Amino acid sequence: MTTMDESGGGSGGEGSSRKPPSIGGDLYHSRDLQESLMECRSAMLDFAVLPIVHPRAERLPNSTQNRVDRFCWPLTRSDMLLSSGQWSTMIVGRLSKWLRLDSKTLSEVKASEAALKEEFAWATHLGLAAVLAPPPAPGVVCSNYARQLNHLIVKAQMGMNVWLEISHGDWAVWNRFRCLCDYSPSLQVALRLEGSQIEAADEASEEQKWLRWMGEPIRSMLIKMSDFVPNASGYPTLPPKMRKVVVRFYERGVQFVLTGRPRHPNGLLPYQMYLVHLCNKSASTPSYREQFESPFYDYLQIPLQPLGDNLESQTYETFEKDPVKYARYEEAVKQALSDAAKRSPPDEDLVVMVVGAGRGPLIRASLRGARAAFLDHRVKIFGVEKNPNAVITLLNSWPRGCSERVQIIAGDMRDWKAPEKADVIVSELLGSWGDNELSPECLRGVEKYLKPTGVSVPCKYDSYIAPMSSHKIWADVRGLSKGPTDVDPSIAASGIARFETPYVVRLFNFYHIDDPKVCFTFDHQPRTEEDFLQEDDGKDVLERQTVMTFSAKEDAMVHGFAGYFTADLYKQVNISIHPDQFSDGMFSWFPLFLPLREPVFVKKNEKMMVTFWRKRSKDKVWYEWSMETESGQITPIHNPTGRSYAVNL
Amino acid sequence: MTTMDESGGGSGGEGSSRKPPSIGGDLYHSRDLQESLMECRSAMLDFAVLPIVHPRAERLPNSTQNRVDRFCWPLTRSDMLLSSGQWSTMIVGRLSKWLRLDSKTLSEVKASEAALKEEFAWATHLGLAAVLAPPPAPGVVCSNYARQLNHLIVKAQMGMNVWLEISHGDWAVWNRFRCLCDYSPSLQVALRLEGSQIEAADEASEEQKWLRWMGEPIRSMLIKMSDFVPNASGYPTLPPKMRKVVVRFYERGVQFVLTGRPRHPNGLLPYQMYLVHLCNKSASTPSYREQFESPFYDYLQIPLQPLGDNLESQTYETFEKDPVKYARYEEAVKQALSDAAKRSPPDEDLVVMVVGAGRGPLIRASLRGARAAFLDHRVKIFGVEKNPNAVITLLNSWPRGCSERVQIIAGDMRDWKAPEKADVIVSELLGSWGDNELSPECLRGVEKYLKPTGVSVPCKYDSYIAPMSSHKIWADVRGLSKGPTDVDPSIAASGIARFETPYVVRLFNFYHIDDPKVCFTFDHQPRTEEDFLQEDDGKDVLERQTVMTFSAKEDAMVHGFAGYFTADLYKQVNISIHPDQFSDGMFSWFPLFLPLREPVFVKKNEKMMVTFWRKRSKDKVWYEWSMETESGQITPIHNPTGRSYAVNL
Repeated sequence: MTTMDESGGGSGGEGSSRKPPSIGGDLYHSRDLQESLMECRSAMLDFAVLPIVHPRAERLPNSTQNRVDRFCWPLTRSDMLLSSGQWSTMIVGRLSKWLRLDSKTLSEVKASEAALKEEFAWATHLGLAAVLAPPPAPGVVCSNYARQLNHLIVKAQMGMNVWLEISHGDWAVWNRFRCLCDYSPSLQVALRLEGSQIEAADEASEEQKWLRWMGEPIRSMLIKMSDFVPNASGYPTLPPKMRKVVVRFYERGVQFVLTGRPRHPNGLLPYQMYLVHLCNKSASTPSYREQFESPFYDYLQIPLQPLGDNLESQTYETFEKDPVKYARYEEAVKQALSDAAKRSPPDEDLVVMVVGAGRGPLIRASLRGARAAFLDHRVKIFGVEKNPNAVITLLNSWPRGCSERVQIIAGDMRDWKAPEKADVIVSELLGSWGDNELSPECLRGVEKYLKPTGVSVPCKYDSYIAPMSSHKIWADVRGLSKGPTDVDPSIAASGIARFETPYVVRLFNFYHIDDPKVCFTFDHQPRTEEDFLQEDDGKDVLERQTVMTFSAKEDAMVHGFAGYFTADLYKQVNISIHPDQFSDGMFSWFPLFLPLREPVFVKKNEKMMVTFWRKRSKDKVWYEWSMETESGQITPIHNPTGRSYAVNL
Repeated sequence: MTTMDESGGGSGGEGSSRKPPSIGGDLYHSRDLQESLMECRSAMLDFAVLPIVHPRAERLPNSTQNRVDRFCWPLTRSDMLLSSGQWSTMIVGRLSKWLRLDSKTLSEVKASEAALKEEFAWATHLGLAAVLAPPPAPGVVCSNYARQLNHLIVKAQMGMNVWLEISHGDWAVWNRFRCLCDYSPSLQVALRLEGSQIEAADEASEEQKWLRWMGEPIRSMLIKMSDFVPNASGYPTLPPKMRKVVVRFYERGVQFVLTGRPRHPNGLLPYQMYLVHLCNKSASTPSYREQFESPFYDYLQIPLQPLGDNLESQTYETFEKDPVKYARYEEAVKQALSDAAKRSPPDEDLVVMVVGAGRGPLIRASLRGARAAFLDHRVKIFGVEKNPNAVITLLNSWPRGCSERVQIIAGDMRDWKAPEKADVIVSELLGSWGDNELSPECLRGVEKYLKPTGVSVPCKYDSYIAPMSSHKIWADVRGLSKGPTDVDPSIAASGIARFETPYVVRLFNFYHIDDPKVCFTFDHQPRTEEDFLQEDDGKDVLERQTVMTFSAKEDAMVHGFAGYFTADLYKQVNISIHPDQFSDGMFSWFPLFLPLREPVFVKKNEKMMVTFWRKRSKDKVWYEWSMETESGQITPIHNPTGRSYAVNL
């Protein structure tokens, strides 16, 4: 289960349509700020990208002097032309394009360093939200550029973001730069679309490259106005493949910057109108689930431990609203009881045990399922619950002695001495990764109360693992002790070793480097004392070790693993959060993220051998994991100290 | 100066009137929750106080058993009667009134402990925002009650507040309880008004006792409906002294709870209507300053260091808007220039030096002042500024060579070699405590450029100190490394030793234990080289040490000191943030708070000997302080390591 507390972000999902795209204009050629802003306003643009240095004062590349005498003329325009509110919301500053911090000519390096510092200081003084930094020169070492920029970012203490301009084909350049800058949260991508390359490329072979960008912190997308083509009426439009790219990134919340000079006589407005129209027409309508979940995108949470902790009223309330899960349970119980009825004498009661009854949703689903099965048998339900607060709710619904069909038992299912055996044992003890909320440990104790023909609902569940890339999520995990990022406050306070624990997170800004593979499987069936004795012969049947081999679909950074589950409730009835077989509309679980301490680079088609362990001691359960790549990189085994889930017996 | 960044809280000050009071009803006698809530709704109440345990299930004081068999009947009502949103916003839970945790009968203590735990667990399960805890028994030790409650609060990790019911005359009980609970931020006062005591008391002699409550975390005020008296039409009204108390606390943002049984046939509604009417009619209209400042009430900020750091555009912009400060400077410069003109030959220019010109507001005020003086002399202005970003702004306003009257000099005033001497040197280098932004250090270097008849504006400034009490502010200082409180994020990150530094804070929830007294005085006048040589004879003329003696107006906890300043600009023109002589409408400075590491209790009329030091080394300035009381309590000297302000030469 996944908590969905309200601190997760915005309210999310009031309307059923997306916000219109945020579009800015790049005023590289502007000489008069007021006039340019008027132009932006009449083109209905949301913001403007403006050179920080006034063109007349631009430095000469090979000197530390400016073109004009600094003692007579200031470096640039006065900050008093705009209010500080306007500077901080409407303007992105563009650093000088001529900067050559990795030039082989020392004087050019010195001049570039001095200029970069001065421009950054002015941008900080203005309180700009972001500066657009020129692209690292292609095919050249960019380490001094990265060093200097990183130094300024660290000094500015995250007050301002740096959008680094990167051509869409240059993922490798971005990867090198962000590694040098140590995943600074203030460094983001301004992705420049190269229209001719996009139209010339084979779409299918490019698909993985676009998907890979989904794991990167793309803040904006630069679109050249020269890549637009006039339609029959002479208005600018984008060619088909560009259109797809633009819509796809719009759906991910990326904003756009129109660059170059407009070719249409009406200036920027027709370009702005076209983009708004395109996004409005072509983007998918957000589903109810998307609206509900969007405030939780990429937001790290600690997995619940319903066995160790007692859930609160609000948590029960949220999960009870799942429109899919309980319908599937109802269907499963209905089929299971129908089958049980066929093999039972008509005068014998059918027995259902709901173990971990919470506030009663599975009891209600079982009652509905029994009714829907039109049975000739009477059905008797036991509801077992260990949380004393939830028991208050259960007893309000089914007071002792007042209901013959439903009987509430206050206590841990593992201690319970059942008075008879069950046809169906129903439970909802699954976590995002199936067994991680200790369903196997709990159900193991009650399997002996199944009749020889009885069934457990669920009867079987699988966890899944996929290697994944996500700059943001990994950087957030690393930043946990450091300060304000998109994380549940309880994580920051809890002092967990950041990389040694799984997180619950609605994965969004991420990339599957390969498809998910099955990791651990558990099933539940009637078990006699003899079975137990045989199985317990020296080995722990609830421990697991699995080795999986993955193959990278593209050059990529592995930041960790995505975890999912599927569960068979009964026969064909199942629930799943595996992306390929997701139970549509179900919202009770977000995926798991299991981080690596250090990101690992893999080449396209390179093999990754990944091992996962489920380990147990008397009073706890934990996971360990590690990875080895074909090229010989070996990660340490994660979670060697066994940070764990209390079994709490 | 005081930064007013936007992270300080709500937006503040949109409308010109206060929010209506928040009023709740205490449903102690409720047996049917739905019915009671309907009653609340029709009485237009904002929330209800509801017993956590259903009356039928209340425990017996001398047993761990409940009145009814817990296996048949649940402890209390089902949580499903309301949504979790309703529980968390509309309901305050009332802990059982019979609890006797400090009884001498062990069985009563055990029963009370068990009940308190169970009730707290249920309140946490419901996600209630607060519980109302019964008053500690008067005249009895309350330590076990405090211990048990504190234990539960700590376990709940601040998720829920505890309102401790305290009679308004029992400040000492509250003080003991909150000290035992170590100033827990989740423990707050529910102040019960005793109507008959209030009406019988002499108002003047009670005033200090009411003021003292202003330093305590009062969350709500309990008003007995039996304290209302019917007016001529039979509607309930409050007697005159009660009215004043209610309005006063309403203005402090306290909410009200109506307790007991309504005596009017229309139920709770007439009481609610009366309170709304009373607050609406009698409360003062919030001033513009109050609206502007309310988001910053009690919000801790690190004092600016304009000498060590360069201010940003937005900071300049905010301070330039002060409607009072620059008008006073303009008046001071006008008078100073008029006087200078009287003693100068008509063909000699009058010279004004603005040192620390920022983006030019004092240059503009000086130009306006000169114009208003209708002088026959020409006025020449030098503007000296060290911040290179502000110099860009200044040069945009007054480009070199384009203005004969105003000349901009980029550089530190202490390094500047002035080409001539000045009639007036104008500066705005004062902090919340006068000298704490190092105005003395900066002006000392330029005093030699004053003509023998020249003046500095300001010519003199005094800092003030008052011992004060504030539960919230002190607890916030102590909590700085611990997590989310109302503090500027930069403080939490900066790692300053919490109790060894002054804070800028708009004091609100506080009490002056005695009136402010002068601490340090500085003045500025023409000084020759000879003066300097004489003064520098072994002693540092910018160091200070002052001993002040205060006397407590009431029994109180000293949490630290409030700091203020007044400055004489020229002759009768001054600016001040001293509460008794505040420059009405000025918003550039909030007071200073200088904390004590441990609160110190003082009796009424007890003397406090307080020493403050201003210390200097070659490159920094710092403050140290300590206090000794008549009863022999001695605080350590604060800031012994000299955490300091960089002089930055």
